[in-house]
Amino acid sequence: MKTFQDYLDTINQAIAAIPYPDAPRQLYAPIEYHMALGGKRVRPVLTLMACDAFGGDSSLALNAALGIEMFHNFTLLHDDVMDNADVRRGKTTVHRRWNDNTAILSGDTMLTIATQYIVRCANWPVMDLFNKTAIEIYEGQQWDMDYENRSDVTVDEYVNMIRLKTSVLLGCALKTGALIAGADDQQADLLYQAGVNMGLAFQLRDDVLDVWGDPVTFGKEIGGDIMNNKKTFLLINAMQLAQGDDADELRHWLNDPYATRDNKVAGVTALYERLGVRQLAEDAIAHYNDLAIAAFNQANIPDEAKNAFIGLANRLSGRTF
Amino acid sequence: MKTFQDYLDTINQAIAAIPYPDAPRQLYAPIEYHMALGGKRVRPVLTLMACDAFGGDSSLALNAALGIEMFHNFTLLHDDVMDNADVRRGKTTVHRRWNDNTAILSGDTMLTIATQYIVRCANWPVMDLFNKTAIEIYEGQQWDMDYENRSDVTVDEYVNMIRLKTSVLLGCALKTGALIAGADDQQADLLYQAGVNMGLAFQLRDDVLDVWGDPVTFGKEIGGDIMNNKKTFLLINAMQLAQGDDADELRHWLNDPYATRDNKVAGVTALYERLGVRQLAEDAIAHYNDLAIAAFNQANIPDEAKNAFIGLANRLSGRTF
Repeated sequence: MKTFQDYLDTINQAIAAIPYPDAPRQLYAPIEYHMALGGKRVRPVLTLMACDAFGGDSSLALNAALGIEMFHNFTLLHDDVMDNADVRRGKTTVHRRWNDNTAILSGDTMLTIATQYIVRCANWPVMDLFNKTAIEIYEGQQWDMDYENRSDVTVDEYVNMIRLKTSVLLGCALKTGALIAGADDQQADLLYQAGVNMGLAFQLRDDVLDVWGDPVTFGKEIGGDIMNNKKTFLLINAMQLAQGDDADELRHWLNDPYATRDNKVAGVTALYERLGVRQLAEDAIAHYNDLAIAAFNQANIPDEAKNAFIGLANRLSGRTF
Repeated sequence: MKTFQDYLDTINQAIAAIPYPDAPRQLYAPIEYHMALGGKRVRPVLTLMACDAFGGDSSLALNAALGIEMFHNFTLLHDDVMDNADVRRGKTTVHRRWNDNTAILSGDTMLTIATQYIVRCANWPVMDLFNKTAIEIYEGQQWDMDYENRSDVTVDEYVNMIRLKTSVLLGCALKTGALIAGADDQQADLLYQAGVNMGLAFQLRDDVLDVWGDPVTFGKEIGGDIMNNKKTFLLINAMQLAQGDDADELRHWLNDPYATRDNKVAGVTALYERLGVRQLAEDAIAHYNDLAIAAFNQANIPDEAKNAFIGLANRLSGRTF
């Protein structure tokens, strides 16, 4: 049976072999640059795994896997413009290395290239799922931006936002592989549900790692969300739970423009621990991971495929990277 | 037989009836706003006309027509960010009325909505043509931006750029209608060629109107291209033809940051007339319009359809609006 690394090698080789036109160079060079930055490649691997799990020929799912990974990278190019981000995967972002216009236009091009890969599967339900998922991801990004200007975001709203912005693409990746293998709708939907719950656990782990992660393995500076007052699962829960002095202290950290990074990150982290929101996040991660595992277990796929999916879900939800 | 106005009414009613989701409002309101700004709606009308011309049921082509118009409007949203444009069709542009991030994300959403409309035609060749055309349009936009920084752009390069940026979508609109009506590849390609040549004449007319148009009927301030030193068909030819004093004067207008608008526009316009580039442009417009008419005449469609297309080509290439 193929390992995660086998699938990853297949994906990375296929990405390296994408034949970009020679010109206009300013349009295609940023796409090649960004696709070569790497990343976990979780989504395309899930597509190949799901296709194999239902007895399909995963080489047929390779176009869909590439389309989904290209789509994901398109969203990163545009998100980095919208967030004015300098660094992605330890390298300079496209809009910073070139400029905003390049990131916009090369991103548009990636979206259409992604669609072309999906078209090659010649499967209308896969095409419909891809477009529906894309719309949900834009909606998630819009909610994320809307929430920056609101102080009353609820946990349910936040979870729905990360479901749209992050999780549905994992569901889409799994369901796409299942559909290409010829799985029926009910079976494909089980994998979709598994993917969405995996995605929720994955994103909540991201929130936790931003506070308690090891910068070496996580690959990012710790405390970025805290410094940006980003309304994560942790901050939203903390804002609801903090009373009296704790509430005053939290308000102070959120509003003091002169707080040093070290002081603010240490202060908010201590508050999070005192208020128990770290444990709330761990409980939520375990909850969504359990739902993902239950869905994989219900699917009509061989035990070794179930075990591979469950191993991956456990690894991603408990990850330190 | 239906008139242009009949088709236009059908398109405008269908656009007004597009069912946008209620939320997130910040994502969909800019799309509704921009789609309601109007415009000539030439592309979707061409799709319906082509479908009828080949004996198809143009109501079946309506989804494709909406997809192509939505796609065209998506490119305008992103172009207006890239060009930092304030006004579009006499109204404030989306990126100015909201902000750049809104124009980027709502534009992305429009591209996927456009693709969803194309998917509804359930026709793989139409889907392939749409994606191929989209890529060509991005390439055209990239060349257009590249040419801003080059002083040695040739007429051929310019014509190829406007072919990609503007003309192929008119070809795509016509061919799509033909394909949906069941026309064979050769017939559909004749309409594609007609559309591309129509588009070249259309864009060259735009260059001419920017200098010699009537601001009331054209709907834009005259001389915008001159003020921006935009390398249009006129300027590229003028740069090649100007000798001696004319060359010195042209260099002066291109490089004097203190020239007033009135003086610069009047000076460059006079040079264009003296150098004969206005006539060169009129000749080129007539040439591409003739090619369009010849392609329509070759197509195996009823005479009244040919006449309607030729009438439209003549109207667009000779337009004052």
